[in-house]
Amino acid sequence: VVDEEFLSRLRECLGERGLLTAAGDMAPYLREWRGHFQCAAGAVARPANTDETAAVVAACAEAGVGIVPQGGNTGLVGGAAAQSAESQIVLALDRMTRIREIDTDNDTITVEAGCILAEVQNAAAGVQRFFPLSLAAEGSCRIGGNLATNAGGVNVLRYGNARDLTLGLEVVLADGRVWHGLSGLRKDNTGYDLRQLFVGSEGTLGIITAATLRLFPAPAQREAAFAGVENPAAAVALLGRLRAVSGDNVIACELLPRFALELTLRHIPGCRDPLDAPHPWYLQVELASPAQGNWLREALESGLEAAFEAGEITDAALAGSLEDAAAFRHIREHIPEAQIREGASIKHDVAVPVSRLPEFVTRATAAIEEEMAGVRVCAFGHVGDGNLHFNLQQPEDADGAAFLKQAPKANRVIHDIVAELDGSFSAEHGIGRLKTGELIRYADPAKLDAMRAIKQALDPKGILNPGVLLADN
Amino acid sequence: VVDEEFLSRLRECLGERGLLTAAGDMAPYLREWRGHFQCAAGAVARPANTDETAAVVAACAEAGVGIVPQGGNTGLVGGAAAQSAESQIVLALDRMTRIREIDTDNDTITVEAGCILAEVQNAAAGVQRFFPLSLAAEGSCRIGGNLATNAGGVNVLRYGNARDLTLGLEVVLADGRVWHGLSGLRKDNTGYDLRQLFVGSEGTLGIITAATLRLFPAPAQREAAFAGVENPAAAVALLGRLRAVSGDNVIACELLPRFALELTLRHIPGCRDPLDAPHPWYLQVELASPAQGNWLREALESGLEAAFEAGEITDAALAGSLEDAAAFRHIREHIPEAQIREGASIKHDVAVPVSRLPEFVTRATAAIEEEMAGVRVCAFGHVGDGNLHFNLQQPEDADGAAFLKQAPKANRVIHDIVAELDGSFSAEHGIGRLKTGELIRYADPAKLDAMRAIKQALDPKGILNPGVLLADN
Repeated sequence: VVDEEFLSRLRECLGERGLLTAAGDMAPYLREWRGHFQCAAGAVARPANTDETAAVVAACAEAGVGIVPQGGNTGLVGGAAAQSAESQIVLALDRMTRIREIDTDNDTITVEAGCILAEVQNAAAGVQRFFPLSLAAEGSCRIGGNLATNAGGVNVLRYGNARDLTLGLEVVLADGRVWHGLSGLRKDNTGYDLRQLFVGSEGTLGIITAATLRLFPAPAQREAAFAGVENPAAAVALLGRLRAVSGDNVIACELLPRFALELTLRHIPGCRDPLDAPHPWYLQVELASPAQGNWLREALESGLEAAFEAGEITDAALAGSLEDAAAFRHIREHIPEAQIREGASIKHDVAVPVSRLPEFVTRATAAIEEEMAGVRVCAFGHVGDGNLHFNLQQPEDADGAAFLKQAPKANRVIHDIVAELDGSFSAEHGIGRLKTGELIRYADPAKLDAMRAIKQALDPKGILNPGVLLADN
Repeated sequence: VVDEEFLSRLRECLGERGLLTAAGDMAPYLREWRGHFQCAAGAVARPANTDETAAVVAACAEAGVGIVPQGGNTGLVGGAAAQSAESQIVLALDRMTRIREIDTDNDTITVEAGCILAEVQNAAAGVQRFFPLSLAAEGSCRIGGNLATNAGGVNVLRYGNARDLTLGLEVVLADGRVWHGLSGLRKDNTGYDLRQLFVGSEGTLGIITAATLRLFPAPAQREAAFAGVENPAAAVALLGRLRAVSGDNVIACELLPRFALELTLRHIPGCRDPLDAPHPWYLQVELASPAQGNWLREALESGLEAAFEAGEITDAALAGSLEDAAAFRHIREHIPEAQIREGASIKHDVAVPVSRLPEFVTRATAAIEEEMAGVRVCAFGHVGDGNLHFNLQQPEDADGAAFLKQAPKANRVIHDIVAELDGSFSAEHGIGRLKTGELIRYADPAKLDAMRAIKQALDPKGILNPGVLLADN
């Protein structure tokens, strides 16, 4: 338990500055911004380096105190929400913000877990390289959290998830030992891939303290378009066409329905409709290549022209400047905020094979509209990844709180269809505390047992993020 | 143990056709082609499908019989070399060769473990897609083995290792249960990444029976060049330049020394020197893009011109046809065969960060030449991955067998330098039975302990490929 003796042990590890125990100091670390969880912790430990992190973990292991690791605290499923003042502390990585190394010949950057994502992007840009991980919270989320949750975002189509960008890790294990795995190697077949086991494990197997990440050549050509399409099937066809003509240089491809565009026009300053007439669905597309030249523009134009002739699109606007491209992106990025201003919404972060995305939208929309009269479906997201944020906006003039109470029913309807289509009920956001029940319901039993065995093997005392991911651990 | 009762149990699972026990029938499965290991097994089980595989594993678990899984038996480290007629069987996946599904909208192919790699490539090409995994043994290696060893090859630079191409797996676990993880999803954050744990685990954690793999748009432009360079540093610089001008479309970039070219000219029919004068080192480069157009040619020409002016290259030949490109590739692919014809050689499959590759070549060459008088270094490989096959050719007129006896000494010299440069002593080929000692010597102790804990958790009876990877398990 967290008692005075334990706290003074932590103070020895961390110094005065590294340990917060006053309620006011701890408050920012005990906020769960979606409002799903009340938070409590006996202290907030803020180590300055890996050695201090290891010392904190060793102390917790000895005392049997649970550790809730926290990066930017921007997660969506309560994975960083500490739950007990008696038996848990928050381990905040926000003082470990060093960029340890940039190696341009090896195209790698080595950063500490507390680096803010945007700072990693900027450091890469500073040496004419590109770090492609990009998501709405990039100004405040931290890379350790991005890796612990295997963050996705808009560039997964071309560059992969956080997992795919990670070459090496430094991790404090449950007994306080450090695995020094900060490899910048492209090839290393010397044993089990611990790296990929820690990425996406939501802090339940170890504490990521640093990572070596892949960099890419900086884009030299950039193009963007905003196209009106009849339906998601046309969007899938258009994406395939643009990937082919552009040489697989579509780096983002976001689908949104007319309703989402209308919400941003209504609620978000600076949004305007890029097309003259309304269309049922839209694709916001970005292309980029590090090659010099102007062939990407030609490829995009000829691709859109052919798509128009094939009846895949009904209209399209090409970005004539970086400002145009930013305006298109502005719409897509502000859908969540517009949804909040419109009222209550129930969110689903699902993925299906791209080939089944049109069927999913049709079936899920019909099923939910039958189940919840007046609901307004706002299904948008990463079409190239088969990943939709299938969000449900409350009926107009309905009571928001009453609407939110229907979330379990809505989840069942949507996630059952996802499961029938071999999809995922949590594509990007993870399990955290919010979706542990869904995991047990939908996961392959053999997988669940293997996960439990691994958790038991690597964290036998169960001190790492208790209650997260595997609720029964 | 493997006795009559156990064999009749297997016969019930597999039928007569699926079980081999006669020495002549078993012989092809008990051949270790590099000659490092004598093989023995009590039987060879050849299941026709996943259910039969599961039944065999369950029977072995009950009887405590070790399972040595085998694909095309082309591995280089004895990972498929069974060692006991009393306590082990070979589990050959070579009857499970179905292509279960190709989904062009999702860009995925689902294949059984026994599919030969070239057949997967051909199936992709048949639907205008590209499956990029490519290596010398592709005509006989099987995809299950490629995944179990996380195969690399020549296209890793652009497309990644086997690991990066794998979206989903079907795996028989150590107790005979099946994990149904054949996902075609790009995003799925619902628990630990078991997939990447099984990939590269060399059959020690589970038996891969099928996989869903990523496909890419088929190349529309292809270019190739063969350039003379002064040294590996110039090769690294040239690769960076070509990646930038081509829009990151260098798909293969192979470094070879003059000595390697000379060996192929001497021993391999159809090889000729693409350049007029000799150069100390060469780069064999291939570029490809799925985009229509001819800008890749222009990019390559302008890149080589600029490299010439910058002093990075001393001469270069551009492929004027697919035949030219094949001739360049022919040289690179036949270095191992030329080495065999030249006499005995000691092989090292190492990787270092790309930025440290020039230093590695200089230091390792000097150290080994001092240690072994007259040795001829033949260091070639995948410069973009920092992965060199740092092979040592016996001195001319030396005794081959006596030379080979110096392998442990050579390993120590080379692998110590690799370790100092934060490299890997086994970049592509894995650990198998051959390198278990090196793993224990060079691996981070915390990593080794975590690996042992995972092995114990997922295979508590130790029946899966005993003696491979973790020799003490």
